[in-house]
Amino acid sequence: MDENRIVAALRRRTAPTARGMTLGIGDDCAIFRPSGARDELVFTTDMLIEDVHFRAATHRPAEIGWKALARGLSDIAAMGATPRFCLLSLALPEWAGSPWIQRFYGGLLKLAQLHSVTLAGGDLAHASTLLCDIVVCGSLPRGTALRRAGARPGDFVYVSGALGGAALGLESGKGAAWRRHLKPEPRIALGLYLRETLRASAAMDLSDGISLDLKRLCLESGVSAELNEPIPVFHGATLDHALHGGEDYELLFTVRPGTKVPATHAGLPLTRIGTIRAGKPGNVALFGRPLAARGYDHFRDRTGV
Amino acid sequence: MDENRIVAALRRRTAPTARGMTLGIGDDCAIFRPSGARDELVFTTDMLIEDVHFRAATHRPAEIGWKALARGLSDIAAMGATPRFCLLSLALPEWAGSPWIQRFYGGLLKLAQLHSVTLAGGDLAHASTLLCDIVVCGSLPRGTALRRAGARPGDFVYVSGALGGAALGLESGKGAAWRRHLKPEPRIALGLYLRETLRASAAMDLSDGISLDLKRLCLESGVSAELNEPIPVFHGATLDHALHGGEDYELLFTVRPGTKVPATHAGLPLTRIGTIRAGKPGNVALFGRPLAARGYDHFRDRTGV
Repeated sequence: MDENRIVAALRRRTAPTARGMTLGIGDDCAIFRPSGARDELVFTTDMLIEDVHFRAATHRPAEIGWKALARGLSDIAAMGATPRFCLLSLALPEWAGSPWIQRFYGGLLKLAQLHSVTLAGGDLAHASTLLCDIVVCGSLPRGTALRRAGARPGDFVYVSGALGGAALGLESGKGAAWRRHLKPEPRIALGLYLRETLRASAAMDLSDGISLDLKRLCLESGVSAELNEPIPVFHGATLDHALHGGEDYELLFTVRPGTKVPATHAGLPLTRIGTIRAGKPGNVALFGRPLAARGYDHFRDRTGV
Repeated sequence: MDENRIVAALRRRTAPTARGMTLGIGDDCAIFRPSGARDELVFTTDMLIEDVHFRAATHRPAEIGWKALARGLSDIAAMGATPRFCLLSLALPEWAGSPWIQRFYGGLLKLAQLHSVTLAGGDLAHASTLLCDIVVCGSLPRGTALRRAGARPGDFVYVSGALGGAALGLESGKGAAWRRHLKPEPRIALGLYLRETLRASAAMDLSDGISLDLKRLCLESGVSAELNEPIPVFHGATLDHALHGGEDYELLFTVRPGTKVPATHAGLPLTRIGTIRAGKPGNVALFGRPLAARGYDHFRDRTGV
């Protein structure tokens, strides 16, 4: 059993049937079009769990709060949307007292303010381990959302930033890589640029490693992909970190051939790494050889933090 | 530290500042008004946690799935809204394999279909204990949501159904009371009736016991309340169950004096139990004596399931 199979089974049993529901399970966000509204709304939900995504001993409460929201914002960025508000569910163990809670919300609200996101509600409960689940709602003009399903053969594959930093940080526990693991920067401005200016054909955020995430994008688009240019690797990280490491929260996107993609956007490198092909859906090759999807899958991997 | 204090501290640090955000922390749902849209959207998020809200040994997966959604739908009912779609985050321990997951979603989707709610997405992860967090979005015409803050002195206080059944069921583990605990029926139709026809002045759902929930409604409205008529008690339950027991998921509401409230709505009894007064905000009296708020508070109580 892996996560893709659980999600696939669920999709067969559900469908975006509600009036206004234009995209259901299977992308970074669900899309809802309120009747009469100018904009569409996108929704994502993302858990951050003690001893899976962080450890109480090594992660400060403000860092956990920041990251809880950052993960949700990264999904909003992947759709090319502007984040609007969030709700937070927080299950707290005994050890998380009032000072911990204050600092946690401090970190979360700091990132929320940076992106003008309102914390609009949520739920609180006690539990044996700490878990936060963030819901973020974003908005964008009707019919313009960047989806995983839009890649076509001949499109070029790009990635933002450098990959493998968070995985290296998790191993080493120090330096720029550790900070990268602790404090991801959701690529909201880049997402807007991809949607409005570059009109990217598909996009998603890199949360589980490009080998797994690119496969997911290809499956949704019904295409395969060939990685035939050097992948930008975070300083000090290995190619394995970059290919299979999770939590980079960079954007993976495709553009139609002929699209002029600048070398950077607001200082963030944009690197062409491959091409979309018409082959078997979901197949990814690295310089001509099949690339196994070894990214982080919650239902296959047990290594945790 | 109790839940009310955590929420109050959080409200001081946040405010519904996002464009279109008309109600933030402190009610059953947050309210968002998409620009140009005819309707407002309401959002709620609600956790259901192993060994806090249920036990794997005594609760079947389909019952847990049903209840996870029912709790969210109950908040939607309290606003007088029509539910539209939901997202589910599910943290799964090792013991919850594929059959368990299938049955869990079976129970959730059965209730979703009854109310034409689309499961539009969510998140999956592994964790040491099982936790589900449901997000439900509902809609209603602008400016018509039933809020906790609308009660005024002289209004009458009503409750739907009979109280204390879920608390009795939790104790006894059998009969109609146990089924009541297992399978709450969210009062969606009643919520619509309260908003459209009775034009209730305030409403909320009874999730933590009326002694605590009515206090919360009074605090939001800046009023006190006097319970001066018999409270409808679930067959076999005690007055203590009815006053302080959680998870009844009935609706508590207030109406302006002179409002004609029928004895039942679609077979569900509606009972007048008290009157709103101008006294100290949050004070609740039962036949002239102060009623202590002993309902379930996650941050004060440790008894669990």
